[in-house]
Amino acid sequence: MNQQMEIISIGNELLIGKTLNTNAQWLAKRTTTFGITVKRITAVGDDVNEIAVALHEALKRKPKFIITTGGLGPTFDDKTLEGMTKALNRKLEVNEKALKMVREKYETYFREGKMERAELTSPRIKMATLPEGAEPLPNPIGTAPGVMMEMEGTFLMALPGVPAEMEGIFEESVVPVLKKNAGKLAFFEASMCADGIMESALAPLIDKAMHENPHVYIKSHPKGEERKPHIEIHFSTTTKNSKIARDRLGKAIILLSELVQKKGAKIKLKKKK
Amino acid sequence: MNQQMEIISIGNELLIGKTLNTNAQWLAKRTTTFGITVKRITAVGDDVNEIAVALHEALKRKPKFIITTGGLGPTFDDKTLEGMTKALNRKLEVNEKALKMVREKYETYFREGKMERAELTSPRIKMATLPEGAEPLPNPIGTAPGVMMEMEGTFLMALPGVPAEMEGIFEESVVPVLKKNAGKLAFFEASMCADGIMESALAPLIDKAMHENPHVYIKSHPKGEERKPHIEIHFSTTTKNSKIARDRLGKAIILLSELVQKKGAKIKLKKKK
Repeated sequence: MNQQMEIISIGNELLIGKTLNTNAQWLAKRTTTFGITVKRITAVGDDVNEIAVALHEALKRKPKFIITTGGLGPTFDDKTLEGMTKALNRKLEVNEKALKMVREKYETYFREGKMERAELTSPRIKMATLPEGAEPLPNPIGTAPGVMMEMEGTFLMALPGVPAEMEGIFEESVVPVLKKNAGKLAFFEASMCADGIMESALAPLIDKAMHENPHVYIKSHPKGEERKPHIEIHFSTTTKNSKIARDRLGKAIILLSELVQKKGAKIKLKKKK
Repeated sequence: MNQQMEIISIGNELLIGKTLNTNAQWLAKRTTTFGITVKRITAVGDDVNEIAVALHEALKRKPKFIITTGGLGPTFDDKTLEGMTKALNRKLEVNEKALKMVREKYETYFREGKMERAELTSPRIKMATLPEGAEPLPNPIGTAPGVMMEMEGTFLMALPGVPAEMEGIFEESVVPVLKKNAGKLAFFEASMCADGIMESALAPLIDKAMHENPHVYIKSHPKGEERKPHIEIHFSTTTKNSKIARDRLGKAIILLSELVQKKGAKIKLKKKK
């Protein structure tokens, strides 16, 4: 079963290093727990053509899911939906369901005295102008709805760039789609630390542990300098249930711990889930 | 002059959300100050084919610079150089200059009593096995050298994933290449905050300010919820010197501040450089 995902982050602020891409990390971590494999994360700027090209390339790789973040707001440089229509060769049109969502938000803000006028100005209507055939996803935090489309077996979901809004729409509207379409696998991981062994000496031990535990992926993450060896070792496996995962991770951890300790290094267990 | 750059971040830890991609942000911020335009940031896993495809796609877009991070170490899953050879259709070979760098590191560690044996085991030789024609870049912090190649007008530079090593090689060996080849432009930016105006009401004001200041890019970044409006407004321009930049940014800031204050919102200046 295809459980692959791509994340496309949209915004010039990412490309000038003004903003750290915490949205992509949050999404990668959260979707991985559903047994989904994130294959690629791409960041592009607020440019219709760049967005369209990145989306088109991702669609050609046929992942099960594509999630975009950013570019759904009311300003001129919120260009994600325009990029989507270009990539999908569809038209942009005012979506009645989305317009209702946006209108109700502004009427609420008006009633609460948070703004002077509730009418739908053109920047506000822009947030309800979606590619034809798209489904708006309610935004529990802000105003711009998320957007979902299904294209030849790929679920394409566009979320806002404001983290609280992105997370809100994700939990409310994206999680049910993932659960229904992502299969029955889940991702499990554990970490331990090795002190007093260099990464170049650890390498053949990891090779051996992975060879004997073919379903476990083991990766070393050196922290600090190689001459003061402190290495985090990360174990992961994707499987149906936590019992299998515990068995698999446990065996790999025990074997690698023994191999590392034989070299005179110290092991410290970190966490397990 | 082509001043475009792409960043390719390599590592499964990015795709499972274990690690936040601070390297890409650091590089984007640092290279932008040289007047370079980062066009795309891509993260892929520790997979030779994924790395090769991402590199091949980036090379086809003909940026002036490509910087990769991660995958240069001694373990089996450090696959960046193998991916490079596949993308470039070259062979991997032991590079004598790189081997000398690696050997000298281990001999120093050995002399300092930091390790038992200094000899070049196969994981250590791996770090000196580069695509043919590549230039190793000394690593002032760790062991694995960085790697530089020039391909049809694109400088391809591979840096380690450990942030201190990546930054060390960047400052020592990449900055001179950027300075020599990136032209004479620089990037300037300033920010201010607007309180008490919604992004949808701010949008037409930004349109007007950008229309009258065509060399300044203005982007609004809503913080928190739209119903409690607090918006950071970011101004940037790429130009030859700070006097022109100050004039340009100053004019745009004054105009937009006036427009925003006429709507009854408050302006707070943040920083300027």
